[in-house]
Order: sequence, then C-alpha cells, then structure tokens
Amino acid sequence: MATEIERKFLVSSEDYKKDARAFVFKQGYLSVTTGRTVRIRTYDDKGVITIKGKRHSYTRDEFEYEIPVEEADIMLENLCIKPLIEKIRHFVVYAGNEWVIDEFLGVNKGLVVAEIELKSEDQSFEKPHWLGEEVTFDNRYGNSHLVSKPYSQW
Amino acid sequence: MATEIERKFLVSSEDYKKDARAFVFKQGYLSVTTGRTVRIRTYDDKGVITIKGKRHSYTRDEFEYEIPVEEADIMLENLCIKPLIEKIRHFVVYAGNEWVIDEFLGVNKGLVVAEIELKSEDQSFEKPHWLGEEVTFDNRYGNSHLVSKPYSQW
Repeated sequence: MATEIERKFLVSSEDYKKDARAFVFKQGYLSVTTGRTVRIRTYDDKGVITIKGKRHSYTRDEFEYEIPVEEADIMLENLCIKPLIEKIRHFVVYAGNEWVIDEFLGVNKGLVVAEIELKSEDQSFEKPHWLGEEVTFDNRYGNSHLVSKPYSQW
Repeated sequence: MATEIERKFLVSSEDYKKDARAFVFKQGYLSVTTGRTVRIRTYDDKGVITIKGKRHSYTRDEFEYEIPVEEADIMLENLCIKPLIEKIRHFVVYAGNEWVIDEFLGVNKGLVVAEIELKSEDQSFEKPHWLGEEVTFDNRYGNSHLVSKPYSQW
C-alpha cells in the first residue's frame, strides 16, 4: 500500500509540453464509489489495477498491482463503466519535482490537469509559470467523476 | 483470465465433512454491481483480488491476482462493503471431481453451499449423497448478494 499525497491544478498554457515525456493512458472504472474506487489502466504496454480509499485532506490510501495488459484490455472493453477515460500523460521535471500533466481526449477533450505527488502534506514546491488554479478539492476533476460527468457536458 | 463454469447446490447433510480439508476464508467486496464484481479475499495466509464479469448460463469471466495478505487485510477492514463474508471452505474429492463446500459464519450462519467447477457446460458429474437442491441461478446465494441481504435476514 502507498499513501498518495497529491495536489491538482489547472494549466494556463501549453509550455509544459517542452521537454515532456508523453504516453497514451487508457483507463476505466469497475467502481466509482468514493472510498472504494477500482481503476483498470493501460499505458506503455503495461496493465495496472488500482484501488483508492477515501481522501483525507490531500492524502488517500492507494493499492496498485501490475496485471497482464491483455487482461486489462478485456476488462476495459467488457467490464468497465463507459465512457473510458483516454488521455496523453506528460511527465515534466520542474525545480526538482516531477509533474504529471494529463491532456484529456475524447469526451473530456479540452481538459488539462497538472498533478504533483508530495512526500508530506506541508511540503513546499516551486510552481511552474504554466500552472493555473488549484482544484485538489474540486471533485469534478477526479477521473472517476469524469466518467459520469465528462468535461464536454460541464 | 479464466472462464468460470460453475454449478451450485445446497447441502442436505454434514457427511461432506469426513475427509474434507478446510480453511477459513474471509472476503469483502469493493463492487457488488452485476458484471463488475470486485472481491478481496484472504485464506491460508494468502491475499487475492478477483474481478468477475456477467454470468452467461453457467459461465462467467474471472480475473484473479494474488496480492500481499497484509494489504488485503487493510482493504477488508477499511474499504470493503460491510458486513464481510466469513466462511469455512471445505474441499472434498468425490468420484474424481473436486467439490468446494462453503459453511458460512457470522450473519450468514446456517447457510451451507456446495460448488463444482466444470470444464464445459455439458460436463456430467456424479452427485454425492449429501447434495441438495441446485441453486446456480438463484442470485440470493451469490456471495456478493449475501453482503446486502445476509442469510440471517431471509
């Protein structure tokens, strides 16, 4: 088990794309219930199942296991709640911290969200100039919420 | 992925207990939605996560992955829907086939169900004398249904 301490922001420009490594992520949910989210994800020829507990402040328990990508694909296709989430995930190192920027596709096209994972809730970090408003506590931006209410319907 | 072909019966006597190997099983659900059941289970110092698809006749897709038992315990305690299912699982070989008999505990005490896993839907098998009525298609006996409607409340 890992404890995930995460802060989430909107993005104000595309400048983050310089020097970013990018992968296509496809993911779907077997449960979107708060406190017991179950996600199937594929990227870079890998399959992963992730279970997330309830958020307390910036923190949430997370259990993650690698699974065969062929089985992940079958679950995405046959079992997961539709629509699936598809996005390009960009990895950027800025001032010694890794940022993950999700550029959503499909029914969530137009949405771009940046996340930083922290070691403690009070850890300070330098904000890149392309960073916008913080949305950590705005549930609408949670990927599991984007299934029932995609960005194109906001 | 495995395809699970399974038939389920009630049990008419305790004779199955002779020559049975038995383990305590504890399990809980992160999703009880038909077609996307997600189960966490511990037994014999093992942890397992299992995802089950929709049943078609006797058959259902099943994806199962071993996980650290300590993490399974945390998910059972903190994340899974309550009440948890606790049972003694007895393994019995009869006429060349393995039978699994679940003797439920806690809120499902009194319920005993025998299952056989088949290689094909039309495979014939010899019925032990302690076998009762078939309940394969009676959803009430599904473990995920016993969470919302335990046997003690029938």
